[in-house]
Amino acid sequence: MIDMLPTGATIGILGGGQLGRMLAVAAARLGLRTHVFDPAANPPAGDVAHATTTAPYEDETALRTFGATVDVITFEFENIPTAALDVLETCAPVRPGRNALRVSQDRLTEKAFLADLGLRTAPFAAVDDEVDLAEAAAEIGLPAILKTRRFGYDGKGQARIMAAEDADQAFADMAGAPAILEGFVDFSHEVSVIGARSAAGDVACYDPGENEHAGGILRTTTVPARLTGAQRTDAVLVAAQILNKLDYIGVMGVELFVTDAGLLVNEIAPRVHNSGHWTQQGCSVDQFEQHIRAVAGWPLGDGTRYADVAMENLIGEDVYRLPDLAAESGASIHLYGKSEVRAGRKMGHVNRVTGGTRST
Amino acid sequence: MIDMLPTGATIGILGGGQLGRMLAVAAARLGLRTHVFDPAANPPAGDVAHATTTAPYEDETALRTFGATVDVITFEFENIPTAALDVLETCAPVRPGRNALRVSQDRLTEKAFLADLGLRTAPFAAVDDEVDLAEAAAEIGLPAILKTRRFGYDGKGQARIMAAEDADQAFADMAGAPAILEGFVDFSHEVSVIGARSAAGDVACYDPGENEHAGGILRTTTVPARLTGAQRTDAVLVAAQILNKLDYIGVMGVELFVTDAGLLVNEIAPRVHNSGHWTQQGCSVDQFEQHIRAVAGWPLGDGTRYADVAMENLIGEDVYRLPDLAAESGASIHLYGKSEVRAGRKMGHVNRVTGGTRST
Repeated sequence: MIDMLPTGATIGILGGGQLGRMLAVAAARLGLRTHVFDPAANPPAGDVAHATTTAPYEDETALRTFGATVDVITFEFENIPTAALDVLETCAPVRPGRNALRVSQDRLTEKAFLADLGLRTAPFAAVDDEVDLAEAAAEIGLPAILKTRRFGYDGKGQARIMAAEDADQAFADMAGAPAILEGFVDFSHEVSVIGARSAAGDVACYDPGENEHAGGILRTTTVPARLTGAQRTDAVLVAAQILNKLDYIGVMGVELFVTDAGLLVNEIAPRVHNSGHWTQQGCSVDQFEQHIRAVAGWPLGDGTRYADVAMENLIGEDVYRLPDLAAESGASIHLYGKSEVRAGRKMGHVNRVTGGTRST
Repeated sequence: MIDMLPTGATIGILGGGQLGRMLAVAAARLGLRTHVFDPAANPPAGDVAHATTTAPYEDETALRTFGATVDVITFEFENIPTAALDVLETCAPVRPGRNALRVSQDRLTEKAFLADLGLRTAPFAAVDDEVDLAEAAAEIGLPAILKTRRFGYDGKGQARIMAAEDADQAFADMAGAPAILEGFVDFSHEVSVIGARSAAGDVACYDPGENEHAGGILRTTTVPARLTGAQRTDAVLVAAQILNKLDYIGVMGVELFVTDAGLLVNEIAPRVHNSGHWTQQGCSVDQFEQHIRAVAGWPLGDGTRYADVAMENLIGEDVYRLPDLAAESGASIHLYGKSEVRAGRKMGHVNRVTGGTRST
């Protein structure tokens, strides 16, 4: 029996961006407080958190002070320094645990983990120098994508190698960081599964959503995704297998490529995920509440999808469309409280219900 | 054209209870900050507000400091001292305005206002002394209810007069406060309409809900309410008439008695209302977001009801049922972050979807 965190208990959240903000709101709905830790001042999640600490992840004193105020610790991003985890783990349980972070922080470790599970991925090889790169290109074939093993997001730290003569520039773009070469996958579209696992070991997955990217950034997620019944089942089983293998507690995003030969795992994210924002309008319990329930030792909630939903990210100047969006019937608006509009910056999202029946 | 408050603007909220808390969350969803003012330390809304001021409503300096940080001021309760309003109105617009407060703060003024509009209420008479009471009882008949004109809520400040010999005790219970005698109404059930009016003057009302009380406290609200089509239309027209007459900006709760002779207005509340909590699971835009939209100068959102919902208040020890509720499929839980359980205290509520279709 896992103890449920009671009203007034505090969840520590590492990272105060929009994901932390929506986690804080979900925690409040369940009577729980949040304490946000972020190196930047005035993080979006600070608007709705009970407390905010502004300090770098290298500040051991700040980490300990933060850790002393919380009952459990979770995070909105995977690139938490190991040394910070070493400190925080002595203060309160960190959920999901560091094994999930270790695997997902490094593209090579992640691919190897998935391969060990018998799951299919794009062909890959480690690249530490130009010799590795030449060998990897020969083995995997071109075109391929060179990616840093760590700290990549939204298409950053990636270079396409279309032909052999691109290789030198691509390697230079990595600036000496350990990298991985991934073969191109001939896929028809990308879907993602938002899976959850409770402290008691129960697993529940949301219906897969179909993703569209532009410029390396997610633009829309639509449910239902274009999948056969068998693919839908496969997608959920893949997510469940990963969650169980990692003894995971919380919500995870699993991106999958749909190919003629079946589903390939693109990447996993040990946190709530942009492609799961549709759950706010499509389910009784959204991904944010599901994550809070899991890390707080609560039973998982009902994530049955009862509506068709199209989620659209508002990126950069998209947010200037707000007057029209506010007047659009049936558009559910979610803004992140970011006053400064920058190109490529995620400012908010809109969910539109496009159909579906709520069953009793 | 009314200006829409932009991302990062701040809404001041007087009162930091559960209504203020849910207003703060709704504001955050729209990218807006909140600053809560409450005389009590650690109010529930403080957990999710950007800033909290703890000071009495008589502290003019604190009011001015608070007022200087906000772009608009609203409130979660109607009993705001007039002197505080005098100060706050010099700092920022107060929405809804003081006319709505003036009318709803005093049961006699409210009844007279409704009668002037041609709306039906229970028979009533002002009672300032024992002579008034005897005359009122003779005119209205017994049984009747003696109520203080001001500061009553959840059944407090009320005494039933079943027969003439109860009158002295009932008058003593009022402790000299100006009162009103209201005749009993022979009604079959109570419904309430949550209405909204935007700064631009648009009006939208939610489908009426049916209320059940026990011990003077709301226990459940159920939609749809038992009403004929004509009654449903009447209910909405009554609310719209009140909103327009008051040049109202924001959400208002209107409680109605359903009688064989039609609808009678029981009372109005110039704020979001407990009987509107079902909108969180029944509509794209709930009453809290609708209120924030109105006071922030946004267009009203889509309040079409797309599901049948039963809202149950969790009062006092009801909250100990949480482990069962958390495991109940389809129960949407909303807790207010109150650690101390007291008899009669509203600790949270649960919305259950009992049917209905989400249309495209």
